[in-house]
Amino acid sequence: MKSAEIISEIRKNFGGVGRWKNTGDDGAVYDLGRDALQNVSVIGDKLVFTTDAFIVDPIFFPGGDIGKIAICGTINDLSVMGAKPIGIGLSIVLEEGFPMEDLKKIMQSIGKVSKASGVPIVTGDTKVTEKGKIDKIEITTSGVGLAKNVISNGGAKAGDCIISSGDLGEHSVALLAKRFNYKTKIQSDCQPLNKELEKVGKLLNACKDPTRGGLAANLNEIAEKSKVKIILEEKTLPYKKETVAVTELLGLDKFSLASEGRFVAAVPEKNAKKVLNILRRFNFEAKVIGRVEKGKGVFLRTELGGLRQIEVPRGKLIPRIC
Amino acid sequence: MKSAEIISEIRKNFGGVGRWKNTGDDGAVYDLGRDALQNVSVIGDKLVFTTDAFIVDPIFFPGGDIGKIAICGTINDLSVMGAKPIGIGLSIVLEEGFPMEDLKKIMQSIGKVSKASGVPIVTGDTKVTEKGKIDKIEITTSGVGLAKNVISNGGAKAGDCIISSGDLGEHSVALLAKRFNYKTKIQSDCQPLNKELEKVGKLLNACKDPTRGGLAANLNEIAEKSKVKIILEEKTLPYKKETVAVTELLGLDKFSLASEGRFVAAVPEKNAKKVLNILRRFNFEAKVIGRVEKGKGVFLRTELGGLRQIEVPRGKLIPRIC
Repeated sequence: MKSAEIISEIRKNFGGVGRWKNTGDDGAVYDLGRDALQNVSVIGDKLVFTTDAFIVDPIFFPGGDIGKIAICGTINDLSVMGAKPIGIGLSIVLEEGFPMEDLKKIMQSIGKVSKASGVPIVTGDTKVTEKGKIDKIEITTSGVGLAKNVISNGGAKAGDCIISSGDLGEHSVALLAKRFNYKTKIQSDCQPLNKELEKVGKLLNACKDPTRGGLAANLNEIAEKSKVKIILEEKTLPYKKETVAVTELLGLDKFSLASEGRFVAAVPEKNAKKVLNILRRFNFEAKVIGRVEKGKGVFLRTELGGLRQIEVPRGKLIPRIC
Repeated sequence: MKSAEIISEIRKNFGGVGRWKNTGDDGAVYDLGRDALQNVSVIGDKLVFTTDAFIVDPIFFPGGDIGKIAICGTINDLSVMGAKPIGIGLSIVLEEGFPMEDLKKIMQSIGKVSKASGVPIVTGDTKVTEKGKIDKIEITTSGVGLAKNVISNGGAKAGDCIISSGDLGEHSVALLAKRFNYKTKIQSDCQPLNKELEKVGKLLNACKDPTRGGLAANLNEIAEKSKVKIILEEKTLPYKKETVAVTELLGLDKFSLASEGRFVAAVPEKNAKKVLNILRRFNFEAKVIGRVEKGKGVFLRTELGGLRQIEVPRGKLIPRIC
């Protein structure tokens, strides 16, 4: 695997697109334009910037691979904040001798998401390190986006509905099943959410993607930052039967399973139906899973009517899931 | 080393600064402002975006550490493109059991450069992986900046002077000396260049920082992209005697040594004196090291008057230098 070959394989997914100009320098240039005011007032005048490292194991899993999860993760981090992602930076560290075929597959997978989501890879870096100094491949994605109104975790209000964009936890289950060689039909839910959130973003009070720490971490963060209480309904919990079965088998807590293509939002009641309708048009199995009330903490109302607190995941989360 | 402790140590260096707002979400928000047009026309209406991975070995070396090199590298990549760096994203992958003391030192070092350069760390991510899956620590920095006029590698013109901002190669020498336990007084030249380049940027036709591949890679890139020939003068080569001595001892080529706090620029002759004066005011030992002519390739004019071609570094560069 020669250096030039690696770079060329990765560069295939790069390029000057739209307002991005590839000057061949170490960074990419986005033209805010002489018409900057007009441009930012159409898209948004808030620049949103994020970064995430991915060291997932295994690097290929049902429904995705480390490349897909890296680009989706960054697109989604921008999208749940109400930003339109405008460009991705892709930084890769490879172990010497990493198979070229695998690198190609990962790059194609990144390219596919980039194309489908309309978010270009605009800058990047590749380093190769000695054998044994890194486990196969590490990818860090960074992203910039423009937002008109930033959606923050702290915006939930008493009376809001809690909506889940679909069933949760399938990313963790697919990855763990592959890791432990356990047969399941469940695939990772990994996907970009920018198009959907571009449509519903302005209808939401708070939004998060339940990656590390899952629904438990997400809702506790929203509850704490918004100074509200959240009550989930057991009968509408967004988990597939098979997800729950595998989770119980592995002795895990379903509330802390990660998803990589889902979001959870606090939505004013008057917007809830509209949000559900839009998401269903995108084939999302969105549903209301709970309510925001005055108070604090996150609770599950069981089918028998009891209340059980859902706490922030304690102890060590399963490593290298996302 | 608990996760919360790590995050808190890293977060110390973060924060809402100036137009950046820390909303507590997964990304940072920079307000282009209602006065966006005014803001971008003062700073610049080109958004520049870059990213780089750092896996240097050793992680502490005379004159710096992996943290300092990571933040300087990204600040400098933006600065040599003529952009004012406005924010840095810091993504860290740690090996389980990485000493908290070392992490503190690295974070303090990042914080110090951030403060001195006026470029805030605005967003980040931290992952911890199992022992043996990564060698100690990997840092990926990404950065955004605003530029009025982007300086590209392709702008050098026949008649320009080639200016080096100081002596080169000291980063490689310091790192290698530490790696091979060789005693030298040379320290890494690692430093942020944004303040200096903010002053001289508009006087330059082309600019690069000679990191990986050193002067040889830099000047060949400028020559090729600008479709010009570059002639260096042996008697003004920007290398300290000790740098040359260590380089010869280790059997290396001085032209491919990396610097992490230097830049090389093609400067119109009429601006050269002004650029040198400004840089010297910053205590930079800047000097003219060559000329741009019509033609192609990079050559060294020896003190005896002969011409020797300086080629792009061939074969494998020394790994984990920058």
